Amino acid sequence: MNSTQASLRINASRFKDNFEALARIGSTGDGGVNRPSFSPAHLQARQWYRQRVEEANLAFHGDSAGNHTAVLSCGPASGPTLLLGSHLDSVPHGGCFDGALGVLAALEVLQTIQDAGLSLPVNLEAIDFSDEEGTLVGLLGSRALAGELARGDLRDPRGGRAALETGLQRAGLSEEGLLQAARPGSSLAGYLELHIEQGERVHRAGADLGIVTTIVGIGSYRITFIGRADHAGTTPMETRLDAAQGASAFTLACRQLVLDTFPACVANVGKIEAQPGAFNIVPARVTLALEYRAPETAAFARIEGALLELAEEQARCFNLEVEAEKLAAHPPTPMSQQVQTAIQEAADTLGLRALPLTSRAGHDAQSLAAVCPAGMVFVPSVGGVSHAPAEFTEWTDCVNGANILLQAALNLAGKMSF
Amino acid sequence: MNSTQASLRINASRFKDNFEALARIGSTGDGGVNRPSFSPAHLQARQWYRQRVEEANLAFHGDSAGNHTAVLSCGPASGPTLLLGSHLDSVPHGGCFDGALGVLAALEVLQTIQDAGLSLPVNLEAIDFSDEEGTLVGLLGSRALAGELARGDLRDPRGGRAALETGLQRAGLSEEGLLQAARPGSSLAGYLELHIEQGERVHRAGADLGIVTTIVGIGSYRITFIGRADHAGTTPMETRLDAAQGASAFTLACRQLVLDTFPACVANVGKIEAQPGAFNIVPARVTLALEYRAPETAAFARIEGALLELAEEQARCFNLEVEAEKLAAHPPTPMSQQVQTAIQEAADTLGLRALPLTSRAGHDAQSLAAVCPAGMVFVPSVGGVSHAPAEFTEWTDCVNGANILLQAALNLAGKMSF
Repeated sequence: MNSTQASLRINASRFKDNFEALARIGSTGDGGVNRPSFSPAHLQARQWYRQRVEEANLAFHGDSAGNHTAVLSCGPASGPTLLLGSHLDSVPHGGCFDGALGVLAALEVLQTIQDAGLSLPVNLEAIDFSDEEGTLVGLLGSRALAGELARGDLRDPRGGRAALETGLQRAGLSEEGLLQAARPGSSLAGYLELHIEQGERVHRAGADLGIVTTIVGIGSYRITFIGRADHAGTTPMETRLDAAQGASAFTLACRQLVLDTFPACVANVGKIEAQPGAFNIVPARVTLALEYRAPETAAFARIEGALLELAEEQARCFNLEVEAEKLAAHPPTPMSQQVQTAIQEAADTLGLRALPLTSRAGHDAQSLAAVCPAGMVFVPSVGGVSHAPAEFTEWTDCVNGANILLQAALNLAGKMSF
Repeated sequence: MNSTQASLRINASRFKDNFEALARIGSTGDGGVNRPSFSPAHLQARQWYRQRVEEANLAFHGDSAGNHTAVLSCGPASGPTLLLGSHLDSVPHGGCFDGALGVLAALEVLQTIQDAGLSLPVNLEAIDFSDEEGTLVGLLGSRALAGELARGDLRDPRGGRAALETGLQRAGLSEEGLLQAARPGSSLAGYLELHIEQGERVHRAGADLGIVTTIVGIGSYRITFIGRADHAGTTPMETRLDAAQGASAFTLACRQLVLDTFPACVANVGKIEAQPGAFNIVPARVTLALEYRAPETAAFARIEGALLELAEEQARCFNLEVEAEKLAAHPPTPMSQQVQTAIQEAADTLGLRALPLTSRAGHDAQSLAAVCPAGMVFVPSVGGVSHAPAEFTEWTDCVNGANILLQAALNLAGKMSF
């Protein structure tokens, strides 16, 4: 890379204006945003992104999986594309940095390179992937683009089939479109994503940024404890088949299992529903949304088995039955060594300290890793809070992160030989 | 009573036709019905009842609390009314006997007395009380009629304020109407209700029916455990403030408390809701619908205190906060001795064995007990199942129960002196 490129920096005030404008869309008034996939606020954010792209004189492209990209043709015609991006959807009542920061940093990188009039061996795209958070399916747009989405993944997705159908309709998309959105791997030079860490490891290590070495494996199940509906006044306590007892015992035991036996893993019961769901009826069915994460392949398989055994065990204690439906399993995914090196070199150029670390959250980069060299930059999260309105990253760190993304992209592009 | 009256019996086949027709409204196809207050199926059942009343050449009357009655003017003009009845609403996915049997037995008693052309010292009404089960408020129509309903009871009812407003609108009712539906106690000669036992005590004692001595006290709370929403992948297990842990520990401890310390009482966690409610977010709030019942005043107060203390204790174990909102408290209510005697004499007349017992369920009779002599007849429930589709009572027992209701009403009327 020449020294002009090495001294190139993003436009921090334009980046900040965009960040603040986007944070107002779906704002919950407490610093958070509520933009679940294809909700009115999410659709509005997508529309806003399209306008920004067009105002920046970049080409706008939408694919049949609902992914939106800004295209900068700074490379050879029909040359490969280096993708930069993240997602604009949020968890329900989440924070305003998760996903949004990465999309806007990608857009800012494209504008900076456009402003500098650089020619590169690759073309660039700043992408907003659809449904990363899993309100509907999870990593939906990135899996579709990488050709990692199968029809079976859409049959009983974790948000429920009805929500998927409604969501696609709202966004003007179709199931067939999702399955036809794959790009050939040969057209992709690589994928780079900037994201908040959602943890405190970078900050605690005294570093400025994180370089992701691997993305944790994530599995999810719908677990239903089944007893019998009975009158909650007239049925003796001893003879009840109370589904809430099994579900509660499992929820407690689940946490204890992770603490005692799988210290590198986590598990969460995030959703609980009792049926029929009345004060005066003993619950016949209690359904739990279970998610677990493990950093290595072996632990990923072992914790799954242990959790299922635990569910059986707790159900037996209360004479209940249990059903476990597997909804998704994304095994642990290593990031490209080439991309990690490009990020480390960018950190060296900028004089920033980088910490190599495992991502404990799932990201679109894990979909892309199947078809091209993929990697991620983490900026530190204050207090490690995420998926909540209090999610926060210092603005200096956001700007550093965007400059790392810029320099890492230039490093990667510089190593391309065509 | 003269011997003609003593030998009077209901028309069992008409009673059965009505019972079967009503069971088809809101049928869930598995023996159960789904007729929560003012749902389309419940409104249809109300309409069906009105037609039956009119076809029977009885006067139909609807009050401003949504109570529907069949009126038989068999007594002196502006003389007092002996009310017989129950309710047509059901719990979600409940049984077809609970409430419905009592309303149809009351109607059958009026038709039998009308057919016999009897003159009595009282007028009779067969009443369908609105919202007995508490989808909205609980014992709503009977409390309104007895003047036991206060504006405060409608502010944050157990089904939620929004559900109440929607329900009232669907039924063409208003809050003001509810508060103006009270009848003067002097206009009421008494109240008699036939109901399924919803337990196995009558059957186990080898009796044909139960005579309720007292109605259990019932209290309900909405209990919310409050933690912090966090990313379920990146937040270490040790630092989470997971509301589901406190709620689960409480649900388990609640059952144990009743088993260990309050053997005559029961408690139920019937509804559980986690927020924000996503696979990948640690629950910030978990709200439980708690109901407890006690047969005596002292135990009723003690169990309430013990449950609230338990909630605090379990919240502390997981560094959570807890909020407990009291929704309703109906203390234990003794039934009228006069009415119990009238039922016992009816059993003697019919050669049936009666068991005096406490009602472990709440009933409209407890509202009426505040303003007039009130009492209840129980028919046995097979297996004690109730609030579920498998709820069942042998038809012979239903017919016996309706004849007991008839004879007890005649006994009570006979003792009136005006």
